[in-house]
Amino acid sequence: MSVPEKFTGFQVNGPETWTEFHKNEFQPKPFGDYDVDIKIECCGVCGSDVHTISGGWGEQKFPLAVGHEIVGTALRVGPKVTLIKPGQRVGVGAQSYSCLDCRQCKNDNETYCLKQLDTYGAVWPETGIVSQGGYSSHVRTHEHWVFPIPDALPSTVAGPMLCAGLTAYSPLVRNGCGPGRKVGIVGLGGIGHLGLLFAKALGASVYVISRTHSKEADALAMGADGFLATSDPQWNEAHIMTFDLIINTANSFEGFDIDAYLSLLDVHGKWVSVGLPEDEEGIRVRNQTFLKNGCFFGSSHLGSRKETLEMLQLAAEKGVRTWVEEVKINEGNLKGVMEKMKGAGGRYRFCLTGYEEAFGR
Amino acid sequence: MSVPEKFTGFQVNGPETWTEFHKNEFQPKPFGDYDVDIKIECCGVCGSDVHTISGGWGEQKFPLAVGHEIVGTALRVGPKVTLIKPGQRVGVGAQSYSCLDCRQCKNDNETYCLKQLDTYGAVWPETGIVSQGGYSSHVRTHEHWVFPIPDALPSTVAGPMLCAGLTAYSPLVRNGCGPGRKVGIVGLGGIGHLGLLFAKALGASVYVISRTHSKEADALAMGADGFLATSDPQWNEAHIMTFDLIINTANSFEGFDIDAYLSLLDVHGKWVSVGLPEDEEGIRVRNQTFLKNGCFFGSSHLGSRKETLEMLQLAAEKGVRTWVEEVKINEGNLKGVMEKMKGAGGRYRFCLTGYEEAFGR
Repeated sequence: MSVPEKFTGFQVNGPETWTEFHKNEFQPKPFGDYDVDIKIECCGVCGSDVHTISGGWGEQKFPLAVGHEIVGTALRVGPKVTLIKPGQRVGVGAQSYSCLDCRQCKNDNETYCLKQLDTYGAVWPETGIVSQGGYSSHVRTHEHWVFPIPDALPSTVAGPMLCAGLTAYSPLVRNGCGPGRKVGIVGLGGIGHLGLLFAKALGASVYVISRTHSKEADALAMGADGFLATSDPQWNEAHIMTFDLIINTANSFEGFDIDAYLSLLDVHGKWVSVGLPEDEEGIRVRNQTFLKNGCFFGSSHLGSRKETLEMLQLAAEKGVRTWVEEVKINEGNLKGVMEKMKGAGGRYRFCLTGYEEAFGR
Repeated sequence: MSVPEKFTGFQVNGPETWTEFHKNEFQPKPFGDYDVDIKIECCGVCGSDVHTISGGWGEQKFPLAVGHEIVGTALRVGPKVTLIKPGQRVGVGAQSYSCLDCRQCKNDNETYCLKQLDTYGAVWPETGIVSQGGYSSHVRTHEHWVFPIPDALPSTVAGPMLCAGLTAYSPLVRNGCGPGRKVGIVGLGGIGHLGLLFAKALGASVYVISRTHSKEADALAMGADGFLATSDPQWNEAHIMTFDLIINTANSFEGFDIDAYLSLLDVHGKWVSVGLPEDEEGIRVRNQTFLKNGCFFGSSHLGSRKETLEMLQLAAEKGVRTWVEEVKINEGNLKGVMEKMKGAGGRYRFCLTGYEEAFGR
């Protein structure tokens, strides 16, 4: 299979028409010495895609093809590539560039490099070309952000792990998730359900914390040790000061009684938010908010290449399986999926397939 | 020296007359098997004293003698006391009770025990007697919260360490302060200056972060490696992502550009607040507030007995010296000191002395 001069993607023209996708050709960035050209097989649909094209995260560069949970086949590798071989099944997640030279990059913190760039919507240095995501025929990515997919993982299972999975996995492993630890997952959506699955795979006792009981049966089927619905009276009382770590995947703090949530944490326990809400409001906190248990409140951004590889290996070994709904990529389905994502979301991740039908062999 | 039936203290009758102190007798709690009776020699003046008697922290039990940076002599010990001997010079800090039986208590987290009680203004279990602090002739305290003072430390130097010092020391040692670490101290007051002195004694590189340059010379004299004044333009730029830990001793978030402060932290660096502001406002944060470096935002409460003993030992060994202004305890001086504390505060800690003059031998 040869790599075309131009790639083709389903692009959106702007937030006013964010559910209208147009199949366009676009110019990829010039092929670099460390680049890998990938023919895409499938791509998960992330909340970020919706935030970006609908204007929730502010101004973006259009036309834009989003998508950053990509799995496909490496067709061609640059002359200095050592990590990937042509023909390999590989993935690309939400990050596609950092300097690889600073202290953060050298310490597996490339996701916190001040020069980090996103897989779509970023401007490539020097060329000025806007990066395009995985709702496309191909993607061209530096090998550092291209990950071999273990054979045991179906492509549509692996795809959503590359953003949603890593987003949950990194703060879990960085904050001690493992046997003997009690972990909470706030919100059972795309990220939340992978957080639950990976926290279980890592050996922790895991509780899902949700507004209602509507997802309780699913949570238990996924292996949750318990389910707390914040609409229940005294929902937190039996668990005060018992959690080591809570990963907050909720998309907003609206209606949160933050004191009740944080009361769950053991001394110096951590609350890590991984969503990026559109609203500017946030939540008001005081020093006293964190005082009773000396807890910590923070956020986490993606994860490292090292963590991505470890996560995929763990998923392969422990049989972690994304709960995925496959949808063939085309204008009509994309519109439908976007509208569902803006509403209640999927159960629990959409993955776009049928790429050969859409883009040819 | 015998222990009187009743103790005597300078009490305040309520927040309307919070600078008027009255020398009254009061009934201490019954002498318990683990209690130590201490004849007080001096007592530091803590911001908590002012917050409490002026009504800033809400309703309190009056009449009340405050003061929880106490040094004195153990006169009498209960039959089960093993940690303290009569005649020893000892100190008492801000906490005087916890269950000593729960998981927190058994893990040197007695300050986070759900049953913890303060040295003054708390109601003793069973008796209903309100605990009275160190603006008094004597104090009766369970041995767990009575600390031998190393010979090398003058009493008025040691006193302020027992609340202000421990409040800074505990989050420093719990969050890795030591050689090779860069630590920030926000606010150079009673707690802040001890935070600076202890962080230096622990071997870290320490920067003071203050609103203006007014305390820069003092900070450098105390050993600070640098001084950042947030009123300077681009005050944070040269230090972005370089701090491992920032201890926030400021009494309010008023006027804080929290993004600029947090930008100083390295990946997963920690911001720990130790003040307990009176205002209810706090500060508004979003997930994005903590995202660029995955930093953590929290608070810390006092510290453990173990940490208190280690802190005093470190102070003795390394020559850590509270910058203290001694003031003889009497009605007039107490009024004056309270008014100064409500304003700009001291440089850097008031310590009340002259107890024999006030209360007799």
